[in-house]
Amino acid sequence: MYDLEKIGKEAKKMASYVRRLASSEKNNILFACAESLEENIAQIIYANDKDMANADPSRGAFNDRLKLNEQRVKAMAEGMRKVARQDDPTGETLYMKSLPNGLKVGEKRVPIGVVGMIYEARPNVTTDSFSLCFKAGNACVLRGSREAINSNIVLVKILQDTLESLEHPREIVQLIEDTSRETAREFMRLNKYIDVLIPRGSAGLIQSAVENSTIPIIETGVGNCHIFVDDSADLSNAVPLIINAKTQRPSVCNSCEKLLIHINIAERFLPIICRSLSDAGVEIRGDETVCGTFEKIIPATEDDWYTEYLDLIIAIKIVDNLEAAIEHINEYSSGHTDAILTESYTNANDFVEQVDSAAVFVNASTRFTDGEEFGLGAEVGISTQKLHARGPMGLTALTTTKFFVLGSGQIRK
Amino acid sequence: MYDLEKIGKEAKKMASYVRRLASSEKNNILFACAESLEENIAQIIYANDKDMANADPSRGAFNDRLKLNEQRVKAMAEGMRKVARQDDPTGETLYMKSLPNGLKVGEKRVPIGVVGMIYEARPNVTTDSFSLCFKAGNACVLRGSREAINSNIVLVKILQDTLESLEHPREIVQLIEDTSRETAREFMRLNKYIDVLIPRGSAGLIQSAVENSTIPIIETGVGNCHIFVDDSADLSNAVPLIINAKTQRPSVCNSCEKLLIHINIAERFLPIICRSLSDAGVEIRGDETVCGTFEKIIPATEDDWYTEYLDLIIAIKIVDNLEAAIEHINEYSSGHTDAILTESYTNANDFVEQVDSAAVFVNASTRFTDGEEFGLGAEVGISTQKLHARGPMGLTALTTTKFFVLGSGQIRK
Repeated sequence: MYDLEKIGKEAKKMASYVRRLASSEKNNILFACAESLEENIAQIIYANDKDMANADPSRGAFNDRLKLNEQRVKAMAEGMRKVARQDDPTGETLYMKSLPNGLKVGEKRVPIGVVGMIYEARPNVTTDSFSLCFKAGNACVLRGSREAINSNIVLVKILQDTLESLEHPREIVQLIEDTSRETAREFMRLNKYIDVLIPRGSAGLIQSAVENSTIPIIETGVGNCHIFVDDSADLSNAVPLIINAKTQRPSVCNSCEKLLIHINIAERFLPIICRSLSDAGVEIRGDETVCGTFEKIIPATEDDWYTEYLDLIIAIKIVDNLEAAIEHINEYSSGHTDAILTESYTNANDFVEQVDSAAVFVNASTRFTDGEEFGLGAEVGISTQKLHARGPMGLTALTTTKFFVLGSGQIRK
Repeated sequence: MYDLEKIGKEAKKMASYVRRLASSEKNNILFACAESLEENIAQIIYANDKDMANADPSRGAFNDRLKLNEQRVKAMAEGMRKVARQDDPTGETLYMKSLPNGLKVGEKRVPIGVVGMIYEARPNVTTDSFSLCFKAGNACVLRGSREAINSNIVLVKILQDTLESLEHPREIVQLIEDTSRETAREFMRLNKYIDVLIPRGSAGLIQSAVENSTIPIIETGVGNCHIFVDDSADLSNAVPLIINAKTQRPSVCNSCEKLLIHINIAERFLPIICRSLSDAGVEIRGDETVCGTFEKIIPATEDDWYTEYLDLIIAIKIVDNLEAAIEHINEYSSGHTDAILTESYTNANDFVEQVDSAAVFVNASTRFTDGEEFGLGAEVGISTQKLHARGPMGLTALTTTKFFVLGSGQIRK
């Protein structure tokens, strides 16, 4: 039995330690860790080669994400330096006021404590997670995937060695080396020690955390983004925008998966957009009307409307009006990003107010939903839940608040 | 099988409806509901009498909380009017900025959607929950206890009749009338329809929600508040303050349950405080030193340090220094409210920084942790978790945020 209890206890102790580090100390540590990564590139690639040798050769895209080379390790180090250069989110007093009895009540931003991360293949998530959690003043416990275990062990050892060389405890970052599902599920139940669990990866992983975790979680990253083309849309803008949203990087969560077209413009717009999508190599699925007006379209099933393809596939539906578009989106969207193309002031407003998603767009590509693009700095992930953080999460998503009350002997009457 | 699926679907539909109501419409509804409660006092008390007749006569304090009379119903109506008079938390734009490419990115406060509440005896929680959820723009699904079921059915019917009389859908507030545990557990798994679940009641209820809920929850209300008397404390203030924190209302979560005393002042202070507590009718439990210095003290067990007594009981421990006090609190406290009494600037600062609780106090009674006292208006509860909301929760805890992006055809490069 893997000793998660011990890891949890250590992490809780480390939370008290990290909470007390000054920003300058945290930054020095992050810069030193970045340097250590670059000094140990050979060792990291050697371990990653073992993971690559064990990889299932049929999983091409997956293995590409697993693969490390000199350039990628340098990018990981650069990522840590970027986090070091960001403002420390903790310590800020959000407000402070005096009550009639002379008590001063304030609220300030403080670290969460212990952050648990559970994630899939990419080894860069290991260093990203550590740097973001640590910069926000937290200890962290990481559980990467079986496929990346050799890479992750070496990466965490390098971080821990660097911490130790600067006379800080190694346990500020801990890796769960047992990658079995049983241990993952047990990890999800360590709510006694871990304050928040962030699952990053497939919908299956996130669903498992929703089902099993007793630790509060932040759901991230599942996208099923819609673009609704209103009958008042500027159609000359619409084509390049939809092509951008669908094809610029189809494997990511903010790419467009569904297109809703107002019935009044369907006859005019459908042939143009289908031709353009088809020319861009996109497979089109569609409702009955769509199938009837353009060749080579596959009939969409009910499942299609829920599916995040993460691929060069799009499903198109004709809707009667704005209300039908909003209703469809609120039913089928994952609540990540949904856009309207319109020149109508009222329709733009109604769409923004009524679509219940983390990010709602008017006349822009869905691809912009991203922490860096929004100016939040390095991104922890994109939350599709409504509690704590919604949409792209910056460092503040890894903090909480605390009330402090300064008195001079006040008692309650 | 109770049809929770139907309730969930209706609630989700209602979330879209309530989201679109103007503040003035919401306020009119709340004022009308308050009036309906007062018009139907006889009917409410008649239903409550049935609950009282079914009540277990051995549970005195519990039954007192269950009991409704004219004055209490009027207080419930007044509570609704108070919520109606508070500012609407939704609609506020938290910030808005222009990106270099001309996109305007904003973040605004919006309703969560559907709030689930699961709670124990007090029938006033039914009207409080509805008014808070509704004012923040949410639909709600309520599940009260078996003991209050007759009262709750009548209360919700009055709210629904009032909604209907004003031509709004009854399903804006729904009550789960099946009070079985199985249905409660099934309710906790309705994450497809319910955005947040707030359990209010005993530690057992909250633990069950932590274990079973797939809906994100906000843990509320478990207290085990400490006061640490530093060796620099003004001891003349200390006695009335501790007596206030322990005895002013011992059954609530912000009353003091544990006293830590610096060893340097133990010999001097212990007899005074023990005498005062004992005179105030408080049962004292203590560590070895404490037991040795004052008669009639019961030895405290390890369990005592974790226990929220909610009664005229206190446990006292002698600690060697500030660090030991902080360590003890971070181990045993529920993270609700913990206080230091000190005249030392450094010790006050260190305590505030290092104690990991929702509210940390210097030289004031723990009894002040409360939404009204803190100036937040009517209180949803006191969160002892770190995600989303921490400490006393006002209406904003029942909201989330949404990014909105206004463009003119921008695509991502």
